[in-house]
Order: sequence, then C-alpha cells, then structure tokens
Amino acid sequence: MDTLAMDTIESIGYPVFFEDSLTELARFIERGKYTRFFVLTDDQTGEYCLPVLQPYLGENAQYDLIEVPSGEQNKTIDFCIGIWQMLIDFGADRNSLLINLGGGVITDMGGFAASTYKRGIDFVHVPTTLLSQVDASVGGKTGIDLSSVKNIVGTFAQPQAVFMDHRFLTSLPPRQILSGLAEMLKHGLICDAEYWNELKISDLTKPSAGLVYQSVAIKNQIVLEDPKEKGIRKALNFGHTIGHAVEAYSLEHDGAKHLTHGEAIAIGMICESWLSFKKNGLSEQELNEIVAVLTNLYPQHEIKSSCHADLLQLMQKDKKNNGTQINCTLLNKIGECSIDHICTEEELSDSLHYYASLY
Amino acid sequence: MDTLAMDTIESIGYPVFFEDSLTELARFIERGKYTRFFVLTDDQTGEYCLPVLQPYLGENAQYDLIEVPSGEQNKTIDFCIGIWQMLIDFGADRNSLLINLGGGVITDMGGFAASTYKRGIDFVHVPTTLLSQVDASVGGKTGIDLSSVKNIVGTFAQPQAVFMDHRFLTSLPPRQILSGLAEMLKHGLICDAEYWNELKISDLTKPSAGLVYQSVAIKNQIVLEDPKEKGIRKALNFGHTIGHAVEAYSLEHDGAKHLTHGEAIAIGMICESWLSFKKNGLSEQELNEIVAVLTNLYPQHEIKSSCHADLLQLMQKDKKNNGTQINCTLLNKIGECSIDHICTEEELSDSLHYYASLY
Ligand SMILES: NC(=O)c1ccc[n+]([C@@H]2O[C@H](COP(=O)([O-])OP(=O)(O)OC[C@H]3O[C@@H](n4cnc5c(N)ncnc54)[C@H](O)[C@@H]3O)[C@@H](O)[C@H]2O)c1
Ligand SMILES: NC(=O)c1ccc[n+]([C@@H]2O[C@H](COP(=O)([O-])OP(=O)(O)OC[C@H]3O[C@@H](n4cnc5c(N)ncnc54)[C@H](O)[C@@H]3O)[C@@H](O)[C@H]2O)c1
Ligand SMILES: [Zn+2]
Ligand SMILES: [Zn+2]
Repeated sequence: MDTLAMDTIESIGYPVFFEDSLTELARFIERGKYTRFFVLTDDQTGEYCLPVLQPYLGENAQYDLIEVPSGEQNKTIDFCIGIWQMLIDFGADRNSLLINLGGGVITDMGGFAASTYKRGIDFVHVPTTLLSQVDASVGGKTGIDLSSVKNIVGTFAQPQAVFMDHRFLTSLPPRQILSGLAEMLKHGLICDAEYWNELKISDLTKPSAGLVYQSVAIKNQIVLEDPKEKGIRKALNFGHTIGHAVEAYSLEHDGAKHLTHGEAIAIGMICESWLSFKKNGLSEQELNEIVAVLTNLYPQHEIKSSCHADLLQLMQKDKKNNGTQINCTLLNKIGECSIDHICTEEELSDSLHYYASLY
Repeated sequence: MDTLAMDTIESIGYPVFFEDSLTELARFIERGKYTRFFVLTDDQTGEYCLPVLQPYLGENAQYDLIEVPSGEQNKTIDFCIGIWQMLIDFGADRNSLLINLGGGVITDMGGFAASTYKRGIDFVHVPTTLLSQVDASVGGKTGIDLSSVKNIVGTFAQPQAVFMDHRFLTSLPPRQILSGLAEMLKHGLICDAEYWNELKISDLTKPSAGLVYQSVAIKNQIVLEDPKEKGIRKALNFGHTIGHAVEAYSLEHDGAKHLTHGEAIAIGMICESWLSFKKNGLSEQELNEIVAVLTNLYPQHEIKSSCHADLLQLMQKDKKNNGTQINCTLLNKIGECSIDHICTEEELSDSLHYYASLY
C-alpha cells in the first residue's frame, strides 16, 4: 500500500500536497503573491515542527512568529483575539499569508483568525498531528470553542493549500497517534469496508503514509459532494454526537487528564455502533468486530451514570442538532451509513451504559 | 423625486425592500423556514424601533430579544461574545434567524455574530438609521472593532433580505441624520453628479424616502460590480482613509463627545477633495463647491497638528492599505473618481491643515 503514488488531492478549490510537500510550500511562497508572512504555532509545534519547516521558508519569506499555548483548552476566543492583536501589531495587511503549523487546534483557530482578519486574509495549513492530517486538513471548517461548546463559533473558509509531511508524525506522542487513528477508522466504517479491513491488519501504532493518504482521499470525496454540510457530509459525524459531548465534558472536568478528540470519538463510535445495532440494522457480529478493534486500541474511560444528564445537555447544544432533537449518523453495516437518525435521551443514555459494560 | 416608484432592489443574492417593507418581513417570517427567531437591538432601537416592528412579528414568531448598549464604543468582541453566549443559552440552532434592528453598529456586529455562530446562521437587517439604510444595508460587510481599529475583524456575508422603513428616521436625532447624509453626498460625488446637484437643493435635515432610495441604488450598483472589493468598489472609500482615522482617534480621545461616522467622513471628504485638487485634476471651483456644502452642514472639529502622527499611524493600520503605503480614492471631478492613489504622509498632513484653515 505504501507504494501507491500519492498524487496531489484536489479539494474545494485548493491542492493538498503529499509528495515533497514542503518543497511545494517553498515554491508557493516564492511565487511572490504575499507581502508578509506569519507562522502560527503552539509551544509544541514551535519546538518540534518549526525546525523541520524553517529550511523551506526561503530568504524571501521573512516571517513573524505567533505562538499560543498548546491544547484544546486554549482554542478560545481569548487566544484568537491574541492572534488578531498580533496581526494588527505586526501590521499585517490584506496581502499577508498565515501559515498554520500545528494540529487541529492551530489549523482551526488559525483558519478562523485568518478568515475574519480584515474580512479574510489567505492562509495555508501544515498539519502536524495525525488527526489534523486526516481530518482537519480538508473540509474548510474553522472554529473556536466558547463556554465549552466545541467549534460553536467559526467559518467555512478554504485554505490556499495544504502541505502534508509524514515526518512531523515522528515526534508525535502515541496518544496523539491514537487520536487521529479514530478518524481513520471512522472513514473505513462509514464508507469503505476495504479500507477498514486493511486498517485492522496494519500496525496502527505507526500508520503509514499510504494509509494517511487514503483517509484524506475518503474524507475529501465526501466533502466535495457536500461542501456546506447540508446532507451526505453528515456521515462524517459518526461517533461525534456522543463523542463531542464526552470530549467537552472531559475538558471541563478532567483537567490536564482530559480525553483527546480521538479518544472521545472512539467512545462515541462504540456508543453509536450500539445504536446502529439497535436502530439501524447493524449486525451483532459487526458490532462486536468494531467494539473489539476499538476497545483493543483505546483504554477505558469512566463515564458515571450521574453525568448522563450533563452529557445529554451538551449534545443538545451541539451545533449538529436542530431544535431540541438529537441526531446521530448510524451504520447499517461496516462501510455504509445513513444520516439524521433522531435518538431519544433514553437510547443515548443506554448506549453510554453499554459502553460502561464493555471493559 | 418622491413620486418615483421604489422597486425592490436586488443586491448580491438578496432583496432590499422599500415599499411596505415590514409587511414583507412578516411574510418572510411566515414562510416558516426558521425554528427560532432572535431580535438584536441596542437600548435606543429597543425603545424607539422595536414598538414599530413588533406588530409585524406575527404569532408564529416567538422571538428572544438580545440587547446591547448603544454606540460605536460597544461594537467590540466583548459584546459579540455576549451575543454568541446568549444564542448558546437560548439554544439557537442552525435554523435560527437573527433580525438586526438598529443602526450600523447593530447590523455590522449582528451580521458578524450570525455569520460565525455555528459557522453561519441566517440574518436579516432592519436598518433604523439613515447611515445604516444608505450604506450598511448593502454590501455584505460585517465587522467589529479591535484596539480602536475599525472593522478589523469581520466577514463578507450577505443577509437573507433587508427591510427599509422610512418611519424609523422620525425618532432619529439630527446629528444621526447628518451622519448618514455624508454617505449620500459621497455617493453623488464619486459617481453621480446629477444626484449631487439634487441633494444640494434639497432639505437635507429631512432627506426624503426617494433620496434614500437613490443612494441605496447607487451603492448597490457599485457593490454588484465588485462584491469582494478588489477594484472599483474602493470608490466607496472616498473620504474614508482620513475619515476612519479621525473617527478612531475621536472615539479614543473625545469620550462621550466623539464624532459620528458621518461627521468624520465629512472631514475626510474635505481633506481628500483637497488631495483630489492637488493630485488628481479636481478643479478649484468644484473643490470650493464641495467644501461649501460640507462646511455648511457640518460644524468644525478641532484637529491639532500634534495629533497628525497618531492619525497617520491609524491610517497605516487601516485595512484598506497594503504594506505601509496609504491609499486614497480621489475625485477627478464631481461625479467621477479613481482609486488607489498613494498619498505621502506630508500630503495627508497638509490636507488636515487645509481642513483646519477652513472655518
Ligand atoms: N476543522 C476540522 O475539520 C476538524 C476536524 C477534526 C478535528 N478538528 C479539531 O482539531 C482539534 C484536535 O486536533 P489535534 O488533536 O491535532 O489537536 P492539537 O492541535 O491540540 O494537537 C495535539 C497535541 O499535539 C501537539 N503536537 C502537534 N503536532 C506535534 C508534533 N508533530 N510533534 C509533537 N507534538 C505535536 C500539540 O502541541 C498538542 O499538544 C480539535 O479542536 C478539533 O475540534 C477540526
Ligand atoms: N457594513 C457596512 O457596509 C457599513 C457601512 C457604513 C457604516 N458601517 C458601520 O456603521 C456604524 C455606524 O452606523 P450608525 O451611525 O447607524 O451607528 P449606530 O448603530 O451606533 O446608530 C447611531 C445611534 O442612533 C441610535 N438609533 C438607531 N436607530 C435609531 C432610531 N430609529 N431612532 C433613534 N435612535 C436610533 C443608536 O442607538 C445609536 O445611538 C459604524 O460602526 C460603521 O463602521 C458599516
Ligand atoms: Zn472528529
Ligand atoms: Zn462610511
């Protein structure tokens, strides 16, 4: 699989580079369209990723660095204001380029800051986590969290280009690999049984560049069919109705020991697979297969019954839902799903109990 | 002129209603596209305009009210966060409609909040000041101020519709009428000499509905030609390079006695007309005509030489400028202009001295 040619992927009006991508970035910069360059990092990507990127930022690209502290808890309007403020102070004009070097927090927040600064300056992503490579890199969603509601404020805005480099993953902690892996498994589950089967037999502690490429290709195909998330794109929400609530709750209550996005989504996928089994014809055998893969990869996380009410409220506030109904994307079999299944509070709570019973 | 039929104006994909517009709003609401309604006002429009609007918000539109304090000094990210927060707390979903009832502060900030809440919910404008009717109502610019840099954060986002009602202007203080008038005069100066001549002989303390309509039609035509402000739309910036700086400075230093937008733009138009005379072939006779009309309408505002450095810095930070050059739109004659004239600090400072010498 690693021998497959990783051609540039065309997303919504912009290219996603895989081969020699940082050389492509250097070329992009040399084209001379921009007067000013800004690199956005967090403390981790400043340390581990900027040294990799630096040699490609040629002499023409004198850049200013904007650094924010790492972590989802900092994907806030306050740090976004900090970014806008630094752009103002550095005198960023409309012909400036913001280079987002980091994981999904940096690409989401940087994308939002750029798409609203002076009503929109250009930006590119250099995603450095597995999660941001396979998920945040295509789709054009930007966002920040407010009052622990994830991505409640944001825009649809496309980067000018995305530059993927597998080298960044070498410094990534194992938990962060697992976090991105959840989305890759999701891509298989919702629309590509063959890819799922391939993942099952791979060494998932070090997903190959080829597997990453396939995952981006799957997500991109779905996004292209439905750029504004009016229909089929909701397939990508599999595991996320419950997962997002679990993630938000953990962020608020577990302090530094909070779940990663992918860990929360893995929980959400288990719960929503169970709902798929109960409500959407997923076979018990496939449910068990999915659960075996996920529980094998992801350690258990305790979710007390006493938190269910709070979790349900978070699901209701989630932007995926209209009015007070809670919607899920459910599988009908591995590799196929359908969207907009209304789930009752009881069903959702039962699925959380199912999760708790597994380990 | 008042007898001219005020047909609905088609802007960038949305209608601007003039005749029986609040009845049109009632119809729009009855169409049943939305699950939830929110009305954004400031304390003034809550008092004077909401009672006018209320009878048209039929029984189907149970709405929640969001009120912010009035004034440009509140067009900030802090109040925008307050709006997002209330939308969260009220449980606004993606099928919600935000009705912006107010002047340009409300339509700009409400438009920004709506266009970024859950990555964009629908909004409509009911502009209640002359300025917001003739200027902020078309063009799709939303924005808030940061560190006294005006509209530095915002989006391009179109409302679903705009509803104009001349009745709102009856409660508007005379200074606010003058504020909107500056933009109407600008519309004549930059591209319609006939309209300018008509304005000159009208009672400008109470601009007629027909004059308002013509002004919107002129702005809309320019906007349609250049929705993203890449070229010709910059014509609308006449008076604004200097005007915006004067306005920002006044907001920061003059406390409650700060200039209105239009008062600042009137100063900017005088200065930039002088620059037009010096650099762009505007005749001395036309310069004097413009200055006579403007100084007759607008009281003098003191701008000390010692503030010039600060003003120039504000101009440099202005989002209209690329790099460190300061650009102006200049007239070549009344009714015609050209864009992108680079002005030196000395020229800009001289134009401010010219203004100071006039009264
Ligand atoms: N826009 C989208 O479509 C989309 C899709 C999925 C997720 N997201 C968002 O992405 C975020 C999660 O992404 P994430 O997991 O990448 O978060 P992240 O950006 O917080 O990265 C995780 C951690 O890894 C560190 N890190 C990043 N790159 C590294 C590297 N190469 N070596 C060592 N450490 C590195 C970071 O500093 C951080 O501490 C969430 O906010 C989520 O909402 C967005
Ligand atoms: N988006 C655009 O294209 C655009 C164009 C021009 C101006 N603007 C923005 O608009 C703002 C200025 O607009 P504005 O002058 O309407 O400001 P505003 O909204 O502050 O209104 C001025 C004052 O009039 C009050 N008011 C409003 N309607 C009233 C009524 N019917 N009766 C009595 N009082 C009323 C308001 O409460 C306020 O105190 C600026 O922030 C400017 O940047 C935007
Ligand atoms: Zn996800
Ligand atoms: Zn203006």
